[in-house]
Amino acid sequence: MMPPAGFRSIVRQGAWSGQTENACRNYAQANLAVVPKEYALDFSTFCQRNPRTFPVMEVTEPGDPFTRKTADNADLRTDLPKYRVFQDGVLIDEPTDIKKYWRDDLVCFLLGCALSMDWYFRSANIKYRMLGAYFNTSVNCIPCGPFRGGVVLGCRLFETALDAVRAIQVSSRYPMAHGAPIHMGSPDGVGIKDLCHPDVTTVPLPIVPPKPNEVALYWDAAATVTNVAKEARLPLMITHCPAHMFITDMVLEELSSS
Amino acid sequence: MMPPAGFRSIVRQGAWSGQTENACRNYAQANLAVVPKEYALDFSTFCQRNPRTFPVMEVTEPGDPFTRKTADNADLRTDLPKYRVFQDGVLIDEPTDIKKYWRDDLVCFLLGCALSMDWYFRSANIKYRMLGAYFNTSVNCIPCGPFRGGVVLGCRLFETALDAVRAIQVSSRYPMAHGAPIHMGSPDGVGIKDLCHPDVTTVPLPIVPPKPNEVALYWDAAATVTNVAKEARLPLMITHCPAHMFITDMVLEELSSS
Repeated sequence: MMPPAGFRSIVRQGAWSGQTENACRNYAQANLAVVPKEYALDFSTFCQRNPRTFPVMEVTEPGDPFTRKTADNADLRTDLPKYRVFQDGVLIDEPTDIKKYWRDDLVCFLLGCALSMDWYFRSANIKYRMLGAYFNTSVNCIPCGPFRGGVVLGCRLFETALDAVRAIQVSSRYPMAHGAPIHMGSPDGVGIKDLCHPDVTTVPLPIVPPKPNEVALYWDAAATVTNVAKEARLPLMITHCPAHMFITDMVLEELSSS
Repeated sequence: MMPPAGFRSIVRQGAWSGQTENACRNYAQANLAVVPKEYALDFSTFCQRNPRTFPVMEVTEPGDPFTRKTADNADLRTDLPKYRVFQDGVLIDEPTDIKKYWRDDLVCFLLGCALSMDWYFRSANIKYRMLGAYFNTSVNCIPCGPFRGGVVLGCRLFETALDAVRAIQVSSRYPMAHGAPIHMGSPDGVGIKDLCHPDVTTVPLPIVPPKPNEVALYWDAAATVTNVAKEARLPLMITHCPAHMFITDMVLEELSSS
């Protein structure tokens, strides 16, 4: 229940480098992508072409790591618990700050995060389970310049069709948390072979298989940015480390569409 | 009731250079802003910072005037009835095509347009009148690089408070048509002195003054881009000519948020 500025201060001092899932309840979390200015127009257009996957919350000026809109003067070099540094598409470091990588030509994109959606589903008394699992799929981002990659999806299983309908309604209100699902029903439709064998998981396996009444809905996952960083092969690209997000000063409700 | 591709073809041949208000009913119209690549990242970020005013529908590759997303291979050099060309912030031409101004480094931004919203208000049986008048205000865009300027607002007067409430609900669903209003009630609140004395008008004066029961709602208007083009003073910037929009292949409903 700590306010975001307090949490960010602890992170900045190096006293917290863990996951952010339960940090600062009700405040919107954000993913981070940092690219050199030379590639920033392409990345901006890439996000515009793939708004469900990469909803843009804030873009900083080249060389300026401080936020203006989503948080009051947060330092994006230090205020996330963990980062990933890619060189020519290869993950070379997972530091807890990026001060030594910072350059005057870097542009930061803060991207909407799916995490907060679950609070709203619970508030709406929607019955479901989060698989805690992420899947590579047959869905591809619309490319722009060097940016391309397969979309990673997360799956939630809803107890009844009515729970799923309500989840579509509720998630549609939050385009900054990836908005409405991009698929429902059979995993085949998006090239997922088996919901019990995810490509990335954040919970202990095995996964309980879908029950006959459960309805699967699929949302874009931030992990897509890892595929994009690998494929783009920029000399330097920095992202948040999965599950280690930036905590904004905005509650998700401020970012709702209606 | 002509399909958009047919209308664009007539425009391309130079056989129509008039306003588009009543063209291709139900299809989303778009405003256009064209800037050299050197300024395109700043303009993209500018739009991201002012999403109510400049909702981005499509961004083209530098030097490529053809659309991919909003229309199948439309040519943005010829497919709008009329353009405005600004040099160093000064309006120098209002041509019916921009072939002679086209360069290999130009990037086109198609921006959501308010026009289509009225069809939805009428469909929802909302009682109101469009002032057909636009006002300079005390509201300013959040700047980025050379891009800045005062927000121009349009005003609609709703017969009852309930009509206004319904209009907020309906417009919220269409972020690509400027979404929800940015102000309601007294024009003073946004620096408008008198609703009967607009800065730009598309209908014959005089304007019937607001009646006591009417509720005023204010939406961002595309005319803001004229202020921005003047203030930015780029060596070259091209926009649509007010009321002479690009007709997309998308119905507004495809762009709704829920």
